[in-house]
Amino acid sequence: MIKSNVAELLGSDNFLQEITLNGWVRTFRANRFIALNDGSTINNIQCVVDFEKMDEATLKRITTGAAISVTGTLEESLGKGQKVEVKVTSLKILGDSNPDEYPIQPKKHSFEFLRENAHLRIRTNTFGAVMRLRSALSFAVHKYFTENGFYNFHAPIITGSDAEGAGEMFNVSTLDPLNPPKKEDGTIDYSQNFFGKETNLTVSGQLEAETYAMALGKVYTFGPTFRAENSNTTRHLAEFWMIEPEVAFNNLDDNMDLAEDFIKSVISYVLANCKDDIAFLNDRLIQEDKRKPAIERSEMTLIERLNFIVENNFKRVSYTEAIDILRNCKPNKKKKFQYIINEWGADLQSEHERFLVEKHFKCPVILFDYPANIKAFYMRLNEDGKTVRAMDVLFPGIGEIVGGSQREERLEVLQQKIKELNIDEKELWWYLDTRRFGTAVHSGFGLGFERLVQFTTGMGNIRDVIPYPRTPQNAEF
Amino acid sequence: MIKSNVAELLGSDNFLQEITLNGWVRTFRANRFIALNDGSTINNIQCVVDFEKMDEATLKRITTGAAISVTGTLEESLGKGQKVEVKVTSLKILGDSNPDEYPIQPKKHSFEFLRENAHLRIRTNTFGAVMRLRSALSFAVHKYFTENGFYNFHAPIITGSDAEGAGEMFNVSTLDPLNPPKKEDGTIDYSQNFFGKETNLTVSGQLEAETYAMALGKVYTFGPTFRAENSNTTRHLAEFWMIEPEVAFNNLDDNMDLAEDFIKSVISYVLANCKDDIAFLNDRLIQEDKRKPAIERSEMTLIERLNFIVENNFKRVSYTEAIDILRNCKPNKKKKFQYIINEWGADLQSEHERFLVEKHFKCPVILFDYPANIKAFYMRLNEDGKTVRAMDVLFPGIGEIVGGSQREERLEVLQQKIKELNIDEKELWWYLDTRRFGTAVHSGFGLGFERLVQFTTGMGNIRDVIPYPRTPQNAEF
Repeated sequence: MIKSNVAELLGSDNFLQEITLNGWVRTFRANRFIALNDGSTINNIQCVVDFEKMDEATLKRITTGAAISVTGTLEESLGKGQKVEVKVTSLKILGDSNPDEYPIQPKKHSFEFLRENAHLRIRTNTFGAVMRLRSALSFAVHKYFTENGFYNFHAPIITGSDAEGAGEMFNVSTLDPLNPPKKEDGTIDYSQNFFGKETNLTVSGQLEAETYAMALGKVYTFGPTFRAENSNTTRHLAEFWMIEPEVAFNNLDDNMDLAEDFIKSVISYVLANCKDDIAFLNDRLIQEDKRKPAIERSEMTLIERLNFIVENNFKRVSYTEAIDILRNCKPNKKKKFQYIINEWGADLQSEHERFLVEKHFKCPVILFDYPANIKAFYMRLNEDGKTVRAMDVLFPGIGEIVGGSQREERLEVLQQKIKELNIDEKELWWYLDTRRFGTAVHSGFGLGFERLVQFTTGMGNIRDVIPYPRTPQNAEF
Repeated sequence: MIKSNVAELLGSDNFLQEITLNGWVRTFRANRFIALNDGSTINNIQCVVDFEKMDEATLKRITTGAAISVTGTLEESLGKGQKVEVKVTSLKILGDSNPDEYPIQPKKHSFEFLRENAHLRIRTNTFGAVMRLRSALSFAVHKYFTENGFYNFHAPIITGSDAEGAGEMFNVSTLDPLNPPKKEDGTIDYSQNFFGKETNLTVSGQLEAETYAMALGKVYTFGPTFRAENSNTTRHLAEFWMIEPEVAFNNLDDNMDLAEDFIKSVISYVLANCKDDIAFLNDRLIQEDKRKPAIERSEMTLIERLNFIVENNFKRVSYTEAIDILRNCKPNKKKKFQYIINEWGADLQSEHERFLVEKHFKCPVILFDYPANIKAFYMRLNEDGKTVRAMDVLFPGIGEIVGGSQREERLEVLQQKIKELNIDEKELWWYLDTRRFGTAVHSGFGLGFERLVQFTTGMGNIRDVIPYPRTPQNAEF
């Protein structure tokens, strides 16, 4: 007798083998056919019971969601739609699922309803597929970097530094919120806080990663980051996972090569390793598209889109070229954009990025060499004195998926910039030390992991690609 | 001309090949021999410059910590201690390192000093080796679980639930700390907080992981967890990374098998893949031991200890047996223990765990079936009504490395327990749903990643195995 799982059995032709199998009932029809799932694959295995040999009380308990253990033999299936099935010789109910109470019935549920039942939505085909893909993508990330000589660097989550300025921060405290200790001048006495100062949740591990790149050469972070921004959109989370590689001696061209190679590699990995889940999600999108007016339908299926990314070069376009294209394009001239592009220096909005990617170039685009004054302080100033070696990778459907830059390696230039922005240099003493001692050209980028999962699964709302999303007014579970 | 790295070149016999190489100077002696490191390996490559052909100004700038770029040919080395060296034809200083200011000189620094310079300590041999090993262990974790059919589950970091009770929590807030909004009764009005309620940093992802295991079968978390405890020890951090697998249909025996197999697998991985770093750390410990009195020296070297774990079965001992052993052992009778073991039910202290592992069994030990009242609410009650299916894996030197259990799968028993402990059942509605709908036997455990890194690297202080440690009064960098 072999304890097996559904994925193994569906791929087996070891007929007449005796097996036991545990799982959850997806459906039970004709008092005979159980579709059993155990999470090892999106596919169910058909388990055939002989209802004449089973007591009625047990039969009644075989309901959607119930956990059962079956013993039987693996047989070639005569029915349509499956190669193998299990002929059940004995069956045990492990855990009931009262059909009058169980929220996840075998019918279509809205994503809104499922979000309120995020602890149970993982039992549906769609969320099973999404989360298995998320896991495979996560492994592909570690595999890519490990095979390419990178070291995984765990950036600190709680930080006493707020110099990065990537967004609003969450305060982390052990002080009594009702009666915080105060100094004589009436301000909070943070010396009594757990860490002896004011602390926040990190918005990025980049600055710390740079210190490690300047010793280990190639490092990457893959951890949670936080933004306390009141953005109720389908593209924003307050808590999300970010991937940030940082490489010593890489210039901006190397950085673009890395971003493109990395994204292609992880998408290739899931195309090769998650065929069933991707096929299901591909079909889901086709069905969803059918319910839309023709003009809103996708030009490509999910699988076509993923292959397109892998097989095509990302178009590299300078900010200056992009502005020229945008200034002269139809939607700009006809004032269809919400933000009209008039001159060089304008910050690009999502509508502009999507126009470039989806209408103009019709492929992923890497924009580079942005105006210095719309980008972060640590980016390498170009010789023109007005642009920096920044880059954004723009994807169809989701817009910016990667933001990165070559870093300013010159101590004096960096100090000058910090001064102009009124950042306290003492806060960044350790960061500046990397430029004081053995500085060198280096580059890196950040990739929001959930955006990548969104793109790979075709899910429209970012709240549906992370197990328990954290958004304004919502930290349930 | 090939852009190369030190690890590749040291393994190459492609002599006379022209190469360029970037890195940092570790030492420069006799105006001729540069030991160059780029983080790709603990080993340096010798770069030989012809000082008669170089200008003196450049020669003076070749100092410890300086970033340089060399061009030259790979040659067979005639010197001792290396197979290959680089004959330098041209050399460029990328970033200076003023020897009067650079804190990391080629001499022995105390770990305390290096902790204050955590952004630079990674440039030393010891911390390079530790952090490369940490990275390899991290990859080994993902590899093991992926190859064994587990899905990586990202547990939420910010949580509105405080039911787990694993320790003191950090508060996460966007309220004005000086003037928080208050309700009529004078308490804080958390409805105005970002998430509309009081929120904390997670102490464990276990409860959420259980909800995913009950659909995907096998899952694991690997993420940061937090304890706001004022523990200034060599074994505690306020922010640390935890690995928590959770498996549907696994009982406690399966759980012990998994823990043992997992630990052996990841240690085998680094023994096979990190030979140079482990050899260095092994030697470091031998040198450290030589400075200790004979009685305090280790019985085994680091490598011997790692092999011992891989090659030996973990001894499985019930709590009841352990108490018998402890009650009758010499240190207990002679009152050498700080806490004397008198009767069944006593909570084991670190001294008892270490006695069992280091003196009595002389191998890793798994203790199981603990008294219910010293363990968490979610653990499966045994038929005896007084013990629970808990397990702790104890390691020499570091004590508890794994804590886990079979979970209480019976709704009524769990509800009764929650009631006894005055936990608000409404807080756990989603957790209890896993027992309401399709419940089944399941098990899991938590492993503190830094403890594993400590054991594998032989580092005495947990603050030296994480890049930027967070401890009471310390959140620098």
